[in-house]
Amino acid sequence: MRTVDLIQKKRDGHELAREEIQFLIEGYTKGEIPDYQMAAWAMAVFFRGMSARETADLTLAMAASGDMLDLSPILGIKTDKHSTGGVGDTVTLVLAPLAASAGVPVAKMSGRGLGHTGGTIDKLESIPGFSTEMSPEDFIRQVNTHGVAVIGQSGNITPADKKLYSLRDVTGTVNSIPLIASSIMSKKIAAGADAIVLDVKTGSGAFMKTLEDSIRLAEAMVSIGTETGRETVAVITDMEEPLGTAVGNALEVRLAVETLQGKGPADLVETCLTLGSHMLVLGVKADSAEEAKDILKSKLSSGEALAKFKEFVAAQGGDPAVGDDPNLLQVSSRHVTVPAPRGGYVGHITAEEIGLAAMELGAGRETKESVIDLSVGVQLLRKTGDAVQEGEGLAVLYAKEGQSQEALDRIAKRVQNAYLLQDEAPEHRKLVHAVISKNGVSYP
Amino acid sequence: MRTVDLIQKKRDGHELAREEIQFLIEGYTKGEIPDYQMAAWAMAVFFRGMSARETADLTLAMAASGDMLDLSPILGIKTDKHSTGGVGDTVTLVLAPLAASAGVPVAKMSGRGLGHTGGTIDKLESIPGFSTEMSPEDFIRQVNTHGVAVIGQSGNITPADKKLYSLRDVTGTVNSIPLIASSIMSKKIAAGADAIVLDVKTGSGAFMKTLEDSIRLAEAMVSIGTETGRETVAVITDMEEPLGTAVGNALEVRLAVETLQGKGPADLVETCLTLGSHMLVLGVKADSAEEAKDILKSKLSSGEALAKFKEFVAAQGGDPAVGDDPNLLQVSSRHVTVPAPRGGYVGHITAEEIGLAAMELGAGRETKESVIDLSVGVQLLRKTGDAVQEGEGLAVLYAKEGQSQEALDRIAKRVQNAYLLQDEAPEHRKLVHAVISKNGVSYP
Repeated sequence: MRTVDLIQKKRDGHELAREEIQFLIEGYTKGEIPDYQMAAWAMAVFFRGMSARETADLTLAMAASGDMLDLSPILGIKTDKHSTGGVGDTVTLVLAPLAASAGVPVAKMSGRGLGHTGGTIDKLESIPGFSTEMSPEDFIRQVNTHGVAVIGQSGNITPADKKLYSLRDVTGTVNSIPLIASSIMSKKIAAGADAIVLDVKTGSGAFMKTLEDSIRLAEAMVSIGTETGRETVAVITDMEEPLGTAVGNALEVRLAVETLQGKGPADLVETCLTLGSHMLVLGVKADSAEEAKDILKSKLSSGEALAKFKEFVAAQGGDPAVGDDPNLLQVSSRHVTVPAPRGGYVGHITAEEIGLAAMELGAGRETKESVIDLSVGVQLLRKTGDAVQEGEGLAVLYAKEGQSQEALDRIAKRVQNAYLLQDEAPEHRKLVHAVISKNGVSYP
Repeated sequence: MRTVDLIQKKRDGHELAREEIQFLIEGYTKGEIPDYQMAAWAMAVFFRGMSARETADLTLAMAASGDMLDLSPILGIKTDKHSTGGVGDTVTLVLAPLAASAGVPVAKMSGRGLGHTGGTIDKLESIPGFSTEMSPEDFIRQVNTHGVAVIGQSGNITPADKKLYSLRDVTGTVNSIPLIASSIMSKKIAAGADAIVLDVKTGSGAFMKTLEDSIRLAEAMVSIGTETGRETVAVITDMEEPLGTAVGNALEVRLAVETLQGKGPADLVETCLTLGSHMLVLGVKADSAEEAKDILKSKLSSGEALAKFKEFVAAQGGDPAVGDDPNLLQVSSRHVTVPAPRGGYVGHITAEEIGLAAMELGAGRETKESVIDLSVGVQLLRKTGDAVQEGEGLAVLYAKEGQSQEALDRIAKRVQNAYLLQDEAPEHRKLVHAVISKNGVSYP
């Protein structure tokens, strides 16, 4: 087999056979196929696309390129949840204990944040004592004992995907649905999932800006799930403004605790209930999404979800008292309120700008090497649709002691500018736009 | 400027600015832009094409990437001729002295052969004593004194093209009209041409298999000529069978001498007259192609073209006596005739197979490092349309002493199989299919 022939085959619109895709991915991972040939192939894929079968084969080949977690010693259907990345996405922190409290085993491998989107591992580390470093054996034992565990991503998981993603980033081949879909799904499959619930963000703050593109990506991932025997449901949720009211690590954990205490903001609660309901259905703990939602609501109101959170935190070395008093989380004492420059209604909040402001405060990484501060971030006091009077607070910035006043003023301006204030109340936007399963698309 | 942005701009179908193309080519030549980014860009060009302006800018950027020959000290319009590569393409050997004898200054930089197509430098070196190594100053002096000179390609001519071509070869991006056209034209421009006559081969033995594709390539090159101020005419000539009757270095020189003596095969003579007539028109030595053809015919019949050949050979250290007795050229004495396996008419001769047979005999290079034998090759006794009786010779192989009988038998079989013998005389194919100039396409 010659790589150049496979590039030309794809270039000319033909389907690559399974062995051909394996040849490419194995050769590339081993360094036998050079970057320039994969770059040409990726650009040909950009133009020609891939069939469902090809995309599934690519996903499996990438999943098999490194370590694969074997979760078979865990009883039950291991249902993983993945978000395509948003600002203020505190969902996993709520959903992991919530789903576990309803009997779904949650064995989650998570990563750190980069750019304007946060990472679950960083957030959890803002709980005093909490550690996500453990052996696969301890990880499995914890899930079997406590129903939930979160482990940091292994260094050698899907190396093919890591290598290909870095290459795509500099060769203009990021925006290809089959390449995005296989990248996400390969990591989920390598992490041992039996079933997968995907939170595909849509809107100006998301990677996919339009509902149409979001649905296409969701369909590609659900199709991979079907082809590879991992039942997958994708929920398209709104990212026209940050989710919830907190952006920053300790701030988001605090918000997660409040949500588990039954005091969460409506959009975050609804997102958690919707995604969680599909986890319960895939994990055969409920017959329908409606029934599942009722179960989850009762787990929240009974305090069982919160109790599971504390159990989970304690199991991983953290202080479970944060579940009773979220103020035990270290949030910076230096804070400044961003006032509304005029009165009116909040018409829109540019999520990416809020995320970048949090990053500038030190909550997120500009590069992989950046050191972050878990105690800083942005707390949103107003969300889209809220009324505000001139001078009232839009948001609060939590800053490092060392940050210059000049930088802080600039960040405050940035947050202020991220808010669109208008005379009329804006139209209400849906939070859940569509659900994609093997049965097709439905619009709730 | 970021390379990834330029890749995406091309990928999305936009036109790159001149400075952007220069940035890519300069960066790539210097090694600042890596192969993988150029590979992705080339694949995007494959799918999106390039405008005439972009193609011209690419050509000039590649021409400027290395040494450029300044032919301005040579009086008159320096008209270069280039062939896209065929089998038995002895045209340059005839045309250089022929055009020079009609007053067109011929200052030609040529290359060596690779694969099944030969190179002018190799062919000329089969003349005892002939050398193509000289300083640019001597080269220019010879053209001013004798009207014609051929020099070997400089090591540092169009390094950007060399690098990009090698990359395209392994990334499935060879077959892109703007990339092929700019590759050819950049070398002609770097070699100092004022005007260019292109021999674009078409048919099963050519790189471009269909007339349509050949015309598209010709149009792209003529357009580059127009955009860069080098008037260019392209002649589409047939390559359904080898041109002339000789494939191999000394054999082709012998045929060229015979042609200059007025005894050349009809197809070679017609090709030389047609291409030469356009050289005379571009060099303003005739007002029309018809008038130019008459001039060239008279130069052949008067012996002036042959005299110019001998002058040219002598000027470059060769033995001019080969012009009177072509048997002075060293052709191997070991030869074997390939008989017709049946009687009938020659319906077709697969040019590439004849070229590969000559390569196997040692006349051509399999790789750049191969050592060739100037005395071997294939002499065609029958051409398309000729009648033949069973057992009569189709061709003669001239072989090295060292070649095994087994290999020779295999090569003879290969040549025999390259001949399609049939009962009916085949339809006559045109030799010159079309002429493309700045005024459009004409069909003679």
